[in-house]
Amino acid sequence: MSGGRVAPARRPRVVIIGAGFGGINAAIGLKNADVDVTVIDRRNYHMFQPLLYQVATAGLSPAQIAMPIRHILRSQKNATVLMDKVEDVDKEARIVITATRRIPYNHLVIATGARHAYFGRDDWEDLAPGLKTVGDATEIRARILTAFEKAEVSEDPAARVRLLTFIVVGGGPTGVELAGAIAELARQAIVRDFRHIDSSTARVVLAEAGPRLLPAFPESLSASAKKQLEKLGVEVRLGHAVTQCDENGVVLADGHAIASGCVLWAAGVQASRAAKWLKAEADRAGRVIVCEDLSLPDNPEIFIIGDTALVKGEDGKPVPGVAPAAKQMGKYVARLIKARLAGKPVGPFRYANYGNLATIGRKAAVADFGWIRLSGFIAWLLWSFAHLWFLVGFRNRIVVFLDWAWAYTTFDRGARLITERRST
Amino acid sequence: MSGGRVAPARRPRVVIIGAGFGGINAAIGLKNADVDVTVIDRRNYHMFQPLLYQVATAGLSPAQIAMPIRHILRSQKNATVLMDKVEDVDKEARIVITATRRIPYNHLVIATGARHAYFGRDDWEDLAPGLKTVGDATEIRARILTAFEKAEVSEDPAARVRLLTFIVVGGGPTGVELAGAIAELARQAIVRDFRHIDSSTARVVLAEAGPRLLPAFPESLSASAKKQLEKLGVEVRLGHAVTQCDENGVVLADGHAIASGCVLWAAGVQASRAAKWLKAEADRAGRVIVCEDLSLPDNPEIFIIGDTALVKGEDGKPVPGVAPAAKQMGKYVARLIKARLAGKPVGPFRYANYGNLATIGRKAAVADFGWIRLSGFIAWLLWSFAHLWFLVGFRNRIVVFLDWAWAYTTFDRGARLITERRST
Repeated sequence: MSGGRVAPARRPRVVIIGAGFGGINAAIGLKNADVDVTVIDRRNYHMFQPLLYQVATAGLSPAQIAMPIRHILRSQKNATVLMDKVEDVDKEARIVITATRRIPYNHLVIATGARHAYFGRDDWEDLAPGLKTVGDATEIRARILTAFEKAEVSEDPAARVRLLTFIVVGGGPTGVELAGAIAELARQAIVRDFRHIDSSTARVVLAEAGPRLLPAFPESLSASAKKQLEKLGVEVRLGHAVTQCDENGVVLADGHAIASGCVLWAAGVQASRAAKWLKAEADRAGRVIVCEDLSLPDNPEIFIIGDTALVKGEDGKPVPGVAPAAKQMGKYVARLIKARLAGKPVGPFRYANYGNLATIGRKAAVADFGWIRLSGFIAWLLWSFAHLWFLVGFRNRIVVFLDWAWAYTTFDRGARLITERRST
Repeated sequence: MSGGRVAPARRPRVVIIGAGFGGINAAIGLKNADVDVTVIDRRNYHMFQPLLYQVATAGLSPAQIAMPIRHILRSQKNATVLMDKVEDVDKEARIVITATRRIPYNHLVIATGARHAYFGRDDWEDLAPGLKTVGDATEIRARILTAFEKAEVSEDPAARVRLLTFIVVGGGPTGVELAGAIAELARQAIVRDFRHIDSSTARVVLAEAGPRLLPAFPESLSASAKKQLEKLGVEVRLGHAVTQCDENGVVLADGHAIASGCVLWAAGVQASRAAKWLKAEADRAGRVIVCEDLSLPDNPEIFIIGDTALVKGEDGKPVPGVAPAAKQMGKYVARLIKARLAGKPVGPFRYANYGNLATIGRKAAVADFGWIRLSGFIAWLLWSFAHLWFLVGFRNRIVVFLDWAWAYTTFDRGARLITERRST
């Protein structure tokens, strides 16, 4: 290798951009294939995103839910991991372009995920951070914990009320998880820690523009989720879009202003920039419209998977942007590439929905398996076991299990650190 | 409470600035005293500093060695914790001043520790970070891991050599620990993770200006430490001060330049600004010269403890800036304050040196107990048990034990995350 260009490999080269659930499963699925796999990610870790809200609310440490990508693929001899930021794709020349490199591919898998969407108000991002990366999570954790610390030292009653008001915008799974976890933190984990404030008086508002929480679930479970959140002390405001957001707090669509020092955003996602790289057709959320086999129309060598793809399920509805769907797409694409190289046909991608789980609190959740709907403690137990089971890496499973067992029996939260962004 | 001033407490108020080993032990020592204790720290956590180098080298997570101060003191009814930054002390009015508050005291304990010293080259701090806070540790961790990542994607052989050269400046305990841990990381934990580089070829240079490593230890153990480091593959350069430091690396006193993308600073400490607040006499390292009972001359109600104090031991030499000394000073001051309130006399502070331990690697260390000197694996076992034993909190002990057991048997390092400073 020399110059700015990587010499084409003798074996077909599969380049995978993004090492989330989709990308990492595509890479692992190609383990025994006669190809060279190159995984590019701008971060060095794969993350178990379903538990990221626990990092944001001080229940888990980043290292408990994240693992270096190259560690996961260390024994996969045909895989190379590059930590780099993709800037463009040259479809004609079949080259992925980063700031310093041009990486040729024979097959390209784009699994770059999604970010939160501010619906044209990107200036709100600093005021109301969303939750997608480990950096987001530690930032949110610092904001939540700092609010309590500031309230403890404040001598102005109005400032205290503002500091002890937490607003979560968006009633999807992330919003529900965050609101529930903040309420539990305030009412249980830290309630004995302060002398000048009563943390259990903290107000947690969950504002959802639509008519119900968790719109992907049946209405009965949405109602159950609302009830379970309210039991935890969360104020659920349905049909309340946020129309203004600044340092003082938010203003809702009905003109009602809520003063808050900690606003969190969970109101929508925007797919990554893949559609721009590919100059491809996308929906409003930026998801690339793909063929039945997840390939780009007219470019059968390019696949788009996970939250970046708009895939229709058998019911005609888009496959949801959840971890199991991304995993299935990654595995499917690996199988398809291997079949193609062997000259065998593969049918279209079919999303298998094994059920839908959302957690609300320490013993509250909702679960929808189609044939059965569960809520409350039983749903929470299911959720816990499912998440532990799927958590990458044996070691993390043990440590997270111990942390949960500890937190469950003691109400403690282990990772309550306000860490500095820069060393000071 | 109202306005900017806290009304004086009815009971004597002890204000403790800093919640390191000294401050937290002073606070805990006053548990059953008839006083109000206020602990002020600009961070929300107490940290087990002797293991901080493990966070910097990806062995442990921050939450495994740090715990919220208010959590430690949650059941101590007479203690209040304030997260705030002290700006000054008014000795005459007996008031501690922060940006927003004025906090009166009857007894003041200053335990604000030390920072690394750049000997007049503060502009080197960004180039060569030191290791004192959790933020420092995650920054150093990101720099070390990013160097390997960049080397893996680089196609310029000279750049690779530079990226795979790590320089640790300073041969005290922190420098020895860092150099040993980086060498082990490169040669063991990550050696199978890369495809384009051989991480075991990484060059780790430990540059010490003085004639030997670990100057606080007997010469035989300094020599042993050097040998053990060299066995791990560390290049130890004694009598080599660093005279220049920039983006390209360092220049040593003999004019020899070493290209490096990752320079770490462990070359000296400077006490906190306490001497300035108090307008007190200090030594060159900024340590306040205190009386035999750790109080400030002419101000018996002010105590300075830990790394901020210059205390003479029975042998006439200054008590070293180590955790056991800070703990003993904290406990002593608590006892003294209680005795004073009871009208009883207390003798001068006596530092009890139970031994000196420094770790070098996964099974290498040196230990000096005066009557016996140990090195190698036995010293390392002692070091491990001592540190596990003293680690704050039962929970952390279990988790750290498991992590060590795992790392020891598998050579794995659990916390290899390059986390973002800001969410992106």
